[in-house]
Amino acid sequence: MRRYRKVDFPVAEVRRFLEPGPVVLVSSAWKDQRDIMTLGWHMVLEFTPSRLATMISSGNHSAGLIRRSGECVINVPTADLLDTVVGIGNTCGDEIDKFAHFGLDAVAGSVVAAPLIAQCHASFECRLVDRSQIRRHGLFIWEVVKAHVARSPKLPRTVHYRGDGQFMVSGDEVSRRRLFNPEML
Amino acid sequence: MRRYRKVDFPVAEVRRFLEPGPVVLVSSAWKDQRDIMTLGWHMVLEFTPSRLATMISSGNHSAGLIRRSGECVINVPTADLLDTVVGIGNTCGDEIDKFAHFGLDAVAGSVVAAPLIAQCHASFECRLVDRSQIRRHGLFIWEVVKAHVARSPKLPRTVHYRGDGQFMVSGDEVSRRRLFNPEML
Repeated sequence: MRRYRKVDFPVAEVRRFLEPGPVVLVSSAWKDQRDIMTLGWHMVLEFTPSRLATMISSGNHSAGLIRRSGECVINVPTADLLDTVVGIGNTCGDEIDKFAHFGLDAVAGSVVAAPLIAQCHASFECRLVDRSQIRRHGLFIWEVVKAHVARSPKLPRTVHYRGDGQFMVSGDEVSRRRLFNPEML
Repeated sequence: MRRYRKVDFPVAEVRRFLEPGPVVLVSSAWKDQRDIMTLGWHMVLEFTPSRLATMISSGNHSAGLIRRSGECVINVPTADLLDTVVGIGNTCGDEIDKFAHFGLDAVAGSVVAAPLIAQCHASFECRLVDRSQIRRHGLFIWEVVKAHVARSPKLPRTVHYRGDGQFMVSGDEVSRRRLFNPEML
């Protein structure tokens, strides 16, 4: 699996990678434990500060590490990692160390203690800013405090879950800039 | 523009259309006003009851109709409607009637007063179930109370926004059912 060397990326522009709706890998750490979970339920909330929401079920092993640490890293995998993405989503982190089991490398972040995944082309360090909806809706509200993105590929092929074991892979890119009011861009 | 004849669809399975992250058209009505907005910031929250979240800025004309009525319809457009999708996102509903201006047909829903868009292949009638995060995060939490989906296409080509006037169009479909634990499907 390819390891990506990543560079700093503006946090206000992480929508470019997340708004199309790819499956992401959420990494977390608390004391001597670490974990990765596969997640499809996320959304952009704001540009500046850069805010996201995720729905994470309390039954997930990662949920405990995330709640306790108040941190996570949202990593975006490409289509060549699909079997790993599915494997992570179908195993439990209280039984295995998912980094070791799936041959993924943990890279230290610059702001949070949760590790980045070297085999993902984009990794966003996040800090939990609102816990008030966790119990009611499983909703975690995050600020992206640091973003790391590989210089290439510019438009990575991502995977998008439909449920029932079926995925859509990202297709063509099209521009409609000419139809936008400048202030809407 | 093709009009779709839609049939009932299980509300617990609307993730099939929404989880991959397509841009949607949100239709709403209040008294003698109606509107449509283009929206990319949404997520699935739960299957049963079928729950979604959307981020809708208070500055949007639709936001007022949606807040007052407590209802909306989330319609999923296909790639052939892209120019209309961009047009709707770059005009303001207090100046024009977007149905008339963009040649879209409003079809009565069966549960909510907000109209379905005939030119979208899937339309989900939604009722607002939690207003508590609107002021703080622009977050509307919905229950899908009725879903209408065309029998074909089975896997419509959808558009996914990246910001800056750029869209990703949905690509290939792949299955990894064989790698899933049955209870995870």
